Amino acid sequence: MRIEPDLALALRLADAAGDAIRPHFRSSGLDTQSKGDASPVTVADRAGEEAMRQILEAEAPEDGIIGEEFGTKPGTSRRDWVLDPIDGTVSFIGGRPIFGTLIALLVDGWPVLGIIDQPILGERWVGASGRETTFNGKPVRTRACRELSQAMLATTGPHYFDDHQGQHFMALAARTDHKRMMMGGDCYNYGLLASGHIDLVCEAGLKLHDWAALVPVVEGAGGTMCDWNGDPLHAASDGHVLALGDSARLEDVIEALACDH
Amino acid sequence: MRIEPDLALALRLADAAGDAIRPHFRSSGLDTQSKGDASPVTVADRAGEEAMRQILEAEAPEDGIIGEEFGTKPGTSRRDWVLDPIDGTVSFIGGRPIFGTLIALLVDGWPVLGIIDQPILGERWVGASGRETTFNGKPVRTRACRELSQAMLATTGPHYFDDHQGQHFMALAARTDHKRMMMGGDCYNYGLLASGHIDLVCEAGLKLHDWAALVPVVEGAGGTMCDWNGDPLHAASDGHVLALGDSARLEDVIEALACDH
Repeated sequence: MRIEPDLALALRLADAAGDAIRPHFRSSGLDTQSKGDASPVTVADRAGEEAMRQILEAEAPEDGIIGEEFGTKPGTSRRDWVLDPIDGTVSFIGGRPIFGTLIALLVDGWPVLGIIDQPILGERWVGASGRETTFNGKPVRTRACRELSQAMLATTGPHYFDDHQGQHFMALAARTDHKRMMMGGDCYNYGLLASGHIDLVCEAGLKLHDWAALVPVVEGAGGTMCDWNGDPLHAASDGHVLALGDSARLEDVIEALACDH
Repeated sequence: MRIEPDLALALRLADAAGDAIRPHFRSSGLDTQSKGDASPVTVADRAGEEAMRQILEAEAPEDGIIGEEFGTKPGTSRRDWVLDPIDGTVSFIGGRPIFGTLIALLVDGWPVLGIIDQPILGERWVGASGRETTFNGKPVRTRACRELSQAMLATTGPHYFDDHQGQHFMALAARTDHKRMMMGGDCYNYGLLASGHIDLVCEAGLKLHDWAALVPVVEGAGGTMCDWNGDPLHAASDGHVLALGDSARLEDVIEALACDH
């Protein structure tokens, strides 16, 4: 498969989403009405996804679209675009420029291309199967982590875990350098892991649109993404997500996570 | 007291710290050796404080200096400069541009001037007694919060609370809009509160250099800073810190925090 045309299209999606989202950041009077799951929905979220869907419907009408805001449009190819205009809605609403637009291309349910775009800071991670991940056009690599006890761990917040998940997470956190544990950040943490600034991200309850774009970014930088059992992430995964900069620590991480006392 | 000369001096301190810190952000090979309290100490932290102390020792030799990195130099005036070159060291090390340089001037132990400076993004909140707080030169105001149940609450991380503090914090969190609770962020959260993007910040274990600069910024924007009993923050406070955008919610917040079951 030649990835270049898809990459070019994905970059244009990110540009369009950024243009739609940027004017609404830190603006007053945001529409923060709640959805069924009570996550905040903003004007920017909808505008971002509409901008991307419009391009896809014109230029790749045979591909499916799975969007965080406007749901699923089945395609007639084996390909699906997965769109999350604003991952990190709480950061967006709170005025922190560490949310991201996520764009992934799945083939047969497997992510082969991913973008994490931060439209306020102009920061963009791009990953694709068989390619080196780039940050603003320059290749990036994850860093080595010799001991789990030295690992810097990030997660968006403990309030996203249920009690059971939280116990397993805490068992992992206790084995890492927990004085440097970093909270908040959503997709931005996975970009920082790809760039070699942090070592581990551990989350639960992620939906396909939350994690699909992260896989090519992290793996193209030399890292590993998997579920809490160490299995590869596929469209049917259960939302327990791990990212490791150094895959040599995978066994330690899975073992630590499996223990909840 | 004429605050203008002190403000001009404080702005130059922030500029100097930023110049010293900026080259080290996301650089590899950071000196992350641990201090006694195991917080990470970076080259940037020391360089930032040295740059500020050098200016103060030359231009305000009679004033005391209380620095996060290099300790206390007693002065012969009633005035003390309180310096924290990098508040949010975990964010700095992790590559997130939401740490801050904190500069405060105390008179008789009370903060009368404060700066929160984000040197990577070029964002700066400036507050002083009897003045409107500014963000990058423009006045900002906190926002109204009609009901505690609608309040957006931020804290740097639950792992900074001991068990007892954590129970009280959770009692407060349960009364707010906890689906929008924001984790991580350190001093940056107080700037966002001053700008009207979030409603509450609640933390414990803060030292004088962590909170002194925040008081004039928050109060000059119309908000309130106090301890968990609602008492004003003074050099001798115990490190339990609350910031409210809307002081009409103070009674509700204190009542919620006091309850731990």
